[in-house]
Amino acid sequence: MVITLLTDFGTADYFVGAMKGAVLSVNASAQLVDLTHDVEPHDVEAGAFTLLEAYRTFPPGTIHVAVVDPGVGSARRPILVVSDNYFFVGPDNGLFSYVYEREEKCRVFHLTNEEYFRRPVSATFHGRDVFAPVAGALSQGVAPQTLGREVSDYVRLAPLAPSCTHEGIQARIIHIDRFGNCITNLTRVELSEESITRGARLKINGREIRSFRKFFAEPDDESEELFAVWGSAGFLEIAAFRQSAARLLDIERGQEVSVSVPPAVAGG
Amino acid sequence: MVITLLTDFGTADYFVGAMKGAVLSVNASAQLVDLTHDVEPHDVEAGAFTLLEAYRTFPPGTIHVAVVDPGVGSARRPILVVSDNYFFVGPDNGLFSYVYEREEKCRVFHLTNEEYFRRPVSATFHGRDVFAPVAGALSQGVAPQTLGREVSDYVRLAPLAPSCTHEGIQARIIHIDRFGNCITNLTRVELSEESITRGARLKINGREIRSFRKFFAEPDDESEELFAVWGSAGFLEIAAFRQSAARLLDIERGQEVSVSVPPAVAGG
Amino acid sequence: MVITLLTDFGTADYFVGAMKGAVLSVNASAQLVDLTHDVEPHDVEAGAFTLLEAYRTFPPGTIHVAVVDPGVGSARRPILVVSDNYFFVGPDNGLFSYVYEREEKCRVFHLTNEEYFRRPVSATFHGRDVFAPVAGALSQGVAPQTLGREVSDYVRLAPLAPSCTHEGIQARIIHIDRFGNCITNLTRVELSEESITRGARLKINGREIRSFRKFFAEPDDESEELFAVWGSAGFLEIAAFRQSAARLLDIERGQEVSVSVPPAVAGG
Repeated sequence: MVITLLTDFGTADYFVGAMKGAVLSVNASAQLVDLTHDVEPHDVEAGAFTLLEAYRTFPPGTIHVAVVDPGVGSARRPILVVSDNYFFVGPDNGLFSYVYEREEKCRVFHLTNEEYFRRPVSATFHGRDVFAPVAGALSQGVAPQTLGREVSDYVRLAPLAPSCTHEGIQARIIHIDRFGNCITNLTRVELSEESITRGARLKINGREIRSFRKFFAEPDDESEELFAVWGSAGFLEIAAFRQSAARLLDIERGQEVSVSVPPAVAGG
Repeated sequence: MVITLLTDFGTADYFVGAMKGAVLSVNASAQLVDLTHDVEPHDVEAGAFTLLEAYRTFPPGTIHVAVVDPGVGSARRPILVVSDNYFFVGPDNGLFSYVYEREEKCRVFHLTNEEYFRRPVSATFHGRDVFAPVAGALSQGVAPQTLGREVSDYVRLAPLAPSCTHEGIQARIIHIDRFGNCITNLTRVELSEESITRGARLKINGREIRSFRKFFAEPDDESEELFAVWGSAGFLEIAAFRQSAARLLDIERGQEVSVSVPPAVAGG
Repeated sequence: MVITLLTDFGTADYFVGAMKGAVLSVNASAQLVDLTHDVEPHDVEAGAFTLLEAYRTFPPGTIHVAVVDPGVGSARRPILVVSDNYFFVGPDNGLFSYVYEREEKCRVFHLTNEEYFRRPVSATFHGRDVFAPVAGALSQGVAPQTLGREVSDYVRLAPLAPSCTHEGIQARIIHIDRFGNCITNLTRVELSEESITRGARLKINGREIRSFRKFFAEPDDESEELFAVWGSAGFLEIAAFRQSAARLLDIERGQEVSVSVPPAVAGG
């Protein structure tokens, strides 16, 4: 059974190693897979986005353990999310928000059965003491109902989708990747091919992006160093040819991107 | 069989990959688990601490390979440490000191049987040529006695515990984690709940810490930005609410922490 | 079946996680091994070198997936390289050049059978959509001929070996490792023990290196802080005792190293 790990623990400390041991102590034949441990510390939104883009490629039955948990030890609940194909284990702080958006049906369980925790449970490291052993138990076939009780008031972040008003689309940068590509929350739902053909433009930090390309390495015919491209996550990305668009435009995550589309010509 | 890897090799070079291949070439069904490869280069003490906090969560029988090895190629010995539950493979330079402190019984073997090494053995990369293949052999059931001869004069670092004199407790910072929490070598043995209740104080870099909390996210009722908390490693940590205590206090690993406890009131 | 991953994706994004899921979705029992994800972005030569030094330690049959792919989405071909002992999957941009140099026989297949790709194939992430699922298929025994058609005009980087003229050997720095050791492309083929004994010298950045040592920790008898050492990759390295030679000498990868060997004394 595959168990993935996504955390903001970094890789220099003992945290990740201790979590892995805690999983394997419950189920020595679990197949551990690191997604990432380099989520920005305490950045629940970044963790939620990275999880969203990674979890769906895994085979059905995969258990995803995600720990970005600034509220560890406080009243925030440890939860298990069960969707049609996957299990998710982690804190109830919004980290699974985009899973809730994307998966058809989700059932959420407050992990209350301490029998499946590592004892004693520390106040500061639920990754090792709660989430890892619960994932180990799940991988052995323990039923969600045995691990806790179902709840409906779980925490959700603001929706990922942009707001569309009569004045246009207000999008935002939801992620900046290693190559400096700036991922917006625009999908083909908000921005159709027809709108792009009609001359859609993006505005961010006083700069306008008018060039839409098919891939990063496309030859630069248009003398535009900055361009937009449909990225592998299904979102529109602002990119630069073999350069960091984030650096060129001084973009930070969360910044607004306004989208303007010229009106359709009457009878056009 | 689980084989963990802890090194100071970083993840950008071929070192870690080459070690993994060397293990799998001996035992293709070994289950490799990365603890960390980001120990500060040549920092044996940091490696020893990280290993201490990670190894104990693993299932019995786990083989831990640890390579922080500034003396590679010199006279320092390659060793195997056998405790009741675990195997440890690496250089004899103090890296396993805290294992010796914590485990009831340890037998240490100087790895001399070159039959189990990768040939030819380079002078600069025993991780690949000695430690990885020996771990592979162990995972296949080769007996420690076959791999080398038992020794008793293995290298130990200074003890982890603080020194307690009639003038008080002289503790030190043994680790600073990714979140900037400063881990001291104080355990509940040296600093009882009763001492804390009586008003124990920590002093470091001219600052005094008087607030003791249960977890990192505890609401700040006491207008103290800095506080002490019992961490997941069993040591007292100096922390700051969603900030880096190390940065706030300009703390480096190794710095002294003095502990003062008010005398018990007579008849109290 | 072991499947290794080497990329320039870094570990902070969802890329590596998504690739792993894409492999496991094809073959859930594949054994994934991270070589590195920290190749400098778009640095094909660095990826080629790191792959060279890591791949050979793995057991026969291992599938190595390598993705340093600035041309993703363009006309560059996705390929499979089959050598006597290994499979290599990745872009045809020179990344496997040193494999071609080292392996006796290589057959190269242009991956054209889209039946084995993840659908739809994005224009920007062939790691997830092409290379990972093809590796999964290979690990299940799908024949190379089924995956594509053999080609002979695959891309090669400049040879790794130094140029030897009557004026001497012009070598270069092909890698700088985490410890600051500067790896040259000199092997024992170009620089014999006899030449070293006769007094060979290296020149780089106006500095001369005359000291040849056996390992990094060798006691400094010669008051030379910089020295040359045969590294674990089989190349001569320029190193400094517990310091970064790269920093001491201000060396960057690609810089030239000239080698001079005093002429043999007549009748000597």
